[in-house]
Amino acid sequence: MAYICMMTSMAPLQNFQMPAAEAALDRVGKLRAELERTGLSGFLVPKHEASPPDEERLAWLFGFTGSMGLGAIAGGRAALFVDGRYVLQAREQVADKAVEQGSLTRKHIASWLGEALKKGNKLGYDPWSHNVGEAAWLARVCRKIGAELVACESNPLDALWANRPSAPSGIIRAHPLEYAGRESSAKINDIAAGLEKRGLDAVVLDRGDSIAWLLNVRSMDAPHTPIVLSRVILSSDGSLDWFVPAGRLGESLPDALPSKVRVRAVEDFAGALKDLKDRKVALDRESAADGIRLHLENAGARLSFGDDPCQLPKACKNPVEQDGARAAHVRDGVALCRFLAWLDDALENGSSVDEIGAVKKLEAFRIATGHLQDISFDTIAGSGPHGAMMHYRVSESSNRRLCEGELFLVDSGGQYLDGTTDVTRTIAVGAPNDEVRRNYSLVLKGYIALAQARFPEGTTGAQLDGFARRALWAAGLDYNHGTGHGVGSFLDVHEGPARISKGGGDVALCAGMILSNEPGYYRDGAYGIRIESLVLVTSAQAIEGGDREMLGFEVLTLAPFDSSLIDVALLDAGERAFVDAYHQRVREIVSPLLEDERERAWLEKATRAL
Amino acid sequence: MAYICMMTSMAPLQNFQMPAAEAALDRVGKLRAELERTGLSGFLVPKHEASPPDEERLAWLFGFTGSMGLGAIAGGRAALFVDGRYVLQAREQVADKAVEQGSLTRKHIASWLGEALKKGNKLGYDPWSHNVGEAAWLARVCRKIGAELVACESNPLDALWANRPSAPSGIIRAHPLEYAGRESSAKINDIAAGLEKRGLDAVVLDRGDSIAWLLNVRSMDAPHTPIVLSRVILSSDGSLDWFVPAGRLGESLPDALPSKVRVRAVEDFAGALKDLKDRKVALDRESAADGIRLHLENAGARLSFGDDPCQLPKACKNPVEQDGARAAHVRDGVALCRFLAWLDDALENGSSVDEIGAVKKLEAFRIATGHLQDISFDTIAGSGPHGAMMHYRVSESSNRRLCEGELFLVDSGGQYLDGTTDVTRTIAVGAPNDEVRRNYSLVLKGYIALAQARFPEGTTGAQLDGFARRALWAAGLDYNHGTGHGVGSFLDVHEGPARISKGGGDVALCAGMILSNEPGYYRDGAYGIRIESLVLVTSAQAIEGGDREMLGFEVLTLAPFDSSLIDVALLDAGERAFVDAYHQRVREIVSPLLEDERERAWLEKATRAL
Repeated sequence: MAYICMMTSMAPLQNFQMPAAEAALDRVGKLRAELERTGLSGFLVPKHEASPPDEERLAWLFGFTGSMGLGAIAGGRAALFVDGRYVLQAREQVADKAVEQGSLTRKHIASWLGEALKKGNKLGYDPWSHNVGEAAWLARVCRKIGAELVACESNPLDALWANRPSAPSGIIRAHPLEYAGRESSAKINDIAAGLEKRGLDAVVLDRGDSIAWLLNVRSMDAPHTPIVLSRVILSSDGSLDWFVPAGRLGESLPDALPSKVRVRAVEDFAGALKDLKDRKVALDRESAADGIRLHLENAGARLSFGDDPCQLPKACKNPVEQDGARAAHVRDGVALCRFLAWLDDALENGSSVDEIGAVKKLEAFRIATGHLQDISFDTIAGSGPHGAMMHYRVSESSNRRLCEGELFLVDSGGQYLDGTTDVTRTIAVGAPNDEVRRNYSLVLKGYIALAQARFPEGTTGAQLDGFARRALWAAGLDYNHGTGHGVGSFLDVHEGPARISKGGGDVALCAGMILSNEPGYYRDGAYGIRIESLVLVTSAQAIEGGDREMLGFEVLTLAPFDSSLIDVALLDAGERAFVDAYHQRVREIVSPLLEDERERAWLEKATRAL
Repeated sequence: MAYICMMTSMAPLQNFQMPAAEAALDRVGKLRAELERTGLSGFLVPKHEASPPDEERLAWLFGFTGSMGLGAIAGGRAALFVDGRYVLQAREQVADKAVEQGSLTRKHIASWLGEALKKGNKLGYDPWSHNVGEAAWLARVCRKIGAELVACESNPLDALWANRPSAPSGIIRAHPLEYAGRESSAKINDIAAGLEKRGLDAVVLDRGDSIAWLLNVRSMDAPHTPIVLSRVILSSDGSLDWFVPAGRLGESLPDALPSKVRVRAVEDFAGALKDLKDRKVALDRESAADGIRLHLENAGARLSFGDDPCQLPKACKNPVEQDGARAAHVRDGVALCRFLAWLDDALENGSSVDEIGAVKKLEAFRIATGHLQDISFDTIAGSGPHGAMMHYRVSESSNRRLCEGELFLVDSGGQYLDGTTDVTRTIAVGAPNDEVRRNYSLVLKGYIALAQARFPEGTTGAQLDGFARRALWAAGLDYNHGTGHGVGSFLDVHEGPARISKGGGDVALCAGMILSNEPGYYRDGAYGIRIESLVLVTSAQAIEGGDREMLGFEVLTLAPFDSSLIDVALLDAGERAFVDAYHQRVREIVSPLLEDERERAWLEKATRAL
């Protein structure tokens, strides 16, 4: 297959600087003055996952660089709300005591606003920074207080932000049919037919991943994420207006787009929404900017809230995408096996290896495949106690040498044109103790139970999540994260709508979905264990002696488990057979692709039967 | 313990008559004429579970006697909507072609009404027969059609119903503290404090089980179900008005009621709702009659919809109720073991046994405990193909002799003052074939996986449901019913709010809840397999080597599985140990309570190690 390399240079993809905390109070003071000028008592600054640098307003205001959070200025007070992942990081980055810190839950935010705002106050928000659902909820909170939520014409923070990065401006390229597997025109017709069937005149799309999928286009508009941040109005007759700067389109892209697609200036979007007067328009409450709702309501459109219609078909990969994912995982598996062989060798030879060194080496092996477009997220490389921090990102200051008797958890992935990967392996440095081997084996039992599961059509991830936890639960252990997330096809490494988790996994798993299977166990301050492979949901198949067809999982990831961490006595015969068969498969596929004899010898040993 | 027997005679509790289909059209015609007189184009006749004979309007109108359904008259048409359990029964009982039959889903009902009603039509409903949620949905359906949902002052059907049974009139007795475990006054204070905390002035209770629990009273107001159909207004100050005919109260009951309880005439209820003007009143949308909502809205009360506050505390049995459940299950286990011994003996001796004979015998053994108040539901005794009908109820006409080589599925339960039981065992008549043994063993594996599960606080039944299906799914098999339902303490054999099922099981399992564990497998026209025991959710306990406390299940039911149906090769060592330990426990507890040596010998043999 021919690959077009989107990487402009071989410069490192991951950097190891932790941004220093900015003088938050200074900027908060300026923002307050700006708000006062416009009669507002407060303002909200949200940060969503996978957003571009010009929307890093929360980092500008408070110096907080986590992937998610909410900043709030109200009354004389200021607060930063983050979820459990970022409590420590927020404390480090935003040391100023004048910025209160709270939990990113509706309950906490509402309670804080209730204290900070007074009756009659006006709370400002940027309707292009909040989705419809968030804004509706904030409006309710304000109503209860007797305050008012006011949409700002322009974001008051932007006026103060010197040197604000520009909006994503990279070239948008066609994602060729050999990777996409389905013509954009066919996808558009399907979505349009769905609108027709539901009696809708149009849908407004506001997700970079949905639009990238629908139009078969890609650009790296968010870090490590080849989405295209833009907007689409698709009519039930199949005509489509795409609002995107024409200058961003790659040379050959206009020819590649379906004829019914009209490329329109971003500035025309508001006017186009006005043209939807009296039309029945679908909008996804959870992804569409509230600004779109406001424009549509002002125009007199009839709104129908529902899920973004691209999300489910995008998640169900077509046969070409499935084959692409397999190929990407073979390639990624070669890089991973080379990395693991290198690591084993370095540790055995007594070389000093640190977290940053390991990350760079792994990145180099992925680049050496010749097909890497980007890593799919900043590698989590946690040695010893760092392994227990689920979203640890190594920096120059946190960097740590791998030590004898510890575990090393490496969670990483690559973006290839034919697929996105995400894999975690946990490695013992030296001989692991009994406790660690027992707990690794329990995590492995959960991983195997999920990987081997068969289930009928209609089964959701929430119903399967417990399969991965059962052995841990029986031993009085658990992990505080979901078991699996969707993964895109050269798109987001975290995609919806299905997931495998305790709560919220209420979308049925469908054939073609790619999800992670990643149970773990973490002992604070000591070590972290996680085993993660991507799995493809296979189509419903008859089983001998059965009377219902069952779906199942095909494991895509190809990298051995560290056998020194497996207490074979804790596995039953079926589980042992699963590991042996998997290791044999890894060896048979990866070994012929390794050029270095020492790497082949390492793989031979690493994949020996238990 | 002293038992007060509520049974007035030793007359059989279950009857075997299947009501003949009535002349439906005749009654439909009369109802239509009545509707026409009052300007209505249609009327709805719902049937809910556990309702008294005077509310069997659907049986009167169409001759359909299933436990759930909806009748509809609209335009010139008539329809009966039933769920999957009753499709066959509805076809048999309502043979008249003028009555259309459909699926009891909102989608089907709405679509039928959309065809049958015209713009401007008035659809009547009895607001005392529909809960708030149902009525709100029906109103929306009518609005879409351009029709109007109209509340009838009185039920037009009742005027036509000659010989309508009277409302429940049995004596209401105190449920003594030795069974209830907690003073009614303490329960009332808890619920009142909960109202206070939520800023509510009062709650209106409209569930017979909630009121029976809250006031520690019982009466058999629905078949086999000792609930008290009445109404309560509970204020946040702890004062409580109970609307119930004073003549129904047992002699000593008034003294047993807390002093803050005022017994008021049923006729005063409407007036009491009027007195709630301007008060903030809680109402359960899913259980409260829509008539209550109408009265409250007319009175100018401020409604706050939420779950009936008695449901969760009622489901979490206190230590006395838990001990009661254990005692009831020992007693019930003795009756069951005697029945199974008798059955085995009869079949071995070549005696002819039929379904009705078995039901009568089982009932007799339960009565012989001296403590049975009632059976907890009509026994499901399905031999051969009848076993595949999940809610089969044997009648004189369907009665069938047990035949060599078949299975016999017996699902039954008893109402005792200290607990309600529900148990299913499947018995092989003669030697079972390999297919049946394999499928029984797969069902057993699921049963064991669930019974042995440990899980953290917050885990819902939906998360555990798959444990019971995993082995079946892996073999391409499944069952079309939930895995577990809540069971009351001398109350409903089906109670909320928690359940173990694919969908809807979103309430966390809490210590003290009693649930069924009942996986199965059914081959249409051939046989049914179900294994059901009741389990008690144990409190969170530490596990050696673990770092989180885990809940678990204590199996309450005491009756051996039929070992001839177990293919030991399909069980792993842990599963074999589970069965052996359970059988040993059954033997040790039940054997000393069997008076007949032959029964003891049978139990000895039936509980032998695999």
